[in-house]
Amino acid sequence: MKKKNKKVNAAILIIGNEILSGRTQDKNVAFISNWLNLNCGIIVQEVRIIPDVEKTIIKNINVLSKKFNYVFTTGGIGPTHDDITAQSISKAFKSKYGFHKEAYKILERYYGKKKFNDGRKKMAKMPIAAKLIYNPSSAAPGFMIKNVISLPGVPSILNSMIENCKRYLIKGLKVHSQTVNLFTVESNISKNLGKIQKKFNKNVDIGSYPFFRLGKIGVSIVFRSTSKSKLKLVKKELMNLIRLKKIKILKI
Amino acid sequence: MKKKNKKVNAAILIIGNEILSGRTQDKNVAFISNWLNLNCGIIVQEVRIIPDVEKTIIKNINVLSKKFNYVFTTGGIGPTHDDITAQSISKAFKSKYGFHKEAYKILERYYGKKKFNDGRKKMAKMPIAAKLIYNPSSAAPGFMIKNVISLPGVPSILNSMIENCKRYLIKGLKVHSQTVNLFTVESNISKNLGKIQKKFNKNVDIGSYPFFRLGKIGVSIVFRSTSKSKLKLVKKELMNLIRLKKIKILKI
Repeated sequence: MKKKNKKVNAAILIIGNEILSGRTQDKNVAFISNWLNLNCGIIVQEVRIIPDVEKTIIKNINVLSKKFNYVFTTGGIGPTHDDITAQSISKAFKSKYGFHKEAYKILERYYGKKKFNDGRKKMAKMPIAAKLIYNPSSAAPGFMIKNVISLPGVPSILNSMIENCKRYLIKGLKVHSQTVNLFTVESNISKNLGKIQKKFNKNVDIGSYPFFRLGKIGVSIVFRSTSKSKLKLVKKELMNLIRLKKIKILKI
Repeated sequence: MKKKNKKVNAAILIIGNEILSGRTQDKNVAFISNWLNLNCGIIVQEVRIIPDVEKTIIKNINVLSKKFNYVFTTGGIGPTHDDITAQSISKAFKSKYGFHKEAYKILERYYGKKKFNDGRKKMAKMPIAAKLIYNPSSAAPGFMIKNVISLPGVPSILNSMIENCKRYLIKGLKVHSQTVNLFTVESNISKNLGKIQKKFNKNVDIGSYPFFRLGKIGVSIVFRSTSKSKLKLVKKELMNLIRLKKIKILKI
């Protein structure tokens, strides 16, 4: 992986009627976003979930690939009629769609010549200029064309492939985060917390998220920054506030 | 709820750094989408997840409220500094932002005058022309302005409020769905399934989703349509295909 000490961002484009309709609970957004930040210092700044409609995919690929350093798509690269991601991305980039030589070989070897039917062959079709993302689970590769990386929708397969994206990504600044869980309500600290946020506005993002645990209400304060020293300063101010307000900390 | 026999659509806009970063697993998309279809016949056609950034919220509200019949936002209506959804939507619609009289009364009654501090008062601030979405869990109401409905991000609270949206929504045609789970691989049926989809292209959406169960690979075939009779015809063709290919059905 190449290194570069600046902010690198990405969008995730989830393609699939089953996620939009609520039939299937998406798990890929949280996984990809966490992995990108922890392993590559890449920050996900937008996610879209769209249906399996060619025009919609093309439009979103065009918009997001211009706006962000990388776009990760999930879903729609299998063998059935509703798998139209690869051909839609080819059209978006006016890049020739057809059998990718290496992908064809990989799949032919995996299934054996006799069982390599039309449905399976379809999974070797993609922008022929694409770089492959190898798939240790079920052989059918993902691919990268320009700044777009296409991965399958099944979480276990996607998870097994994600490390193979690393070589193609420029590394950015990792966002570090700290969490302090408090037994209080948001409105008790909102004013002071707002002041701390204002003071560190340029370097630290402070978030406040209510939680419920064993019938008690609490608030998780999460602060995130690319600078560890700035995080320390925010934590110090937060601890002062906690002492001042006599708030109990939940230790997990 | 008003009735109208046509397709009514919606977008969901998830507002929150904690979802984007992968810290928190979103559960609201699946819940809202399922609820809207089952109870109101409204189809979710796009989801976006964006950070707590005013400019970004305004832009997305403007785009999505023009493109879809309804927009549901989640997150960012609490008492802390990172809760900026209400003021951002006011700005998007150039609608006056301030204390909403009824919301103020509800919150004052809930907390009592003495405990009604600035943080809590902030939750009564919204577009003053908004209609309220009552909150039986924790009092702080959501709101509707133009075709945008703003709900909180905490799933248990959102879930308790959703029925109170119904009176403001025009009812559309419900999408019915059927699922047949098969012990086969996608590539075994992809060609024939594609033919069935082509035949019913105008009325039925057929999706194909791999699953793993007790070490066996399977495929869920899901067909969705506003017409029950068309669903029956598709099911008949699918059952013929299953017999022809001698595929075992998984009964759940």
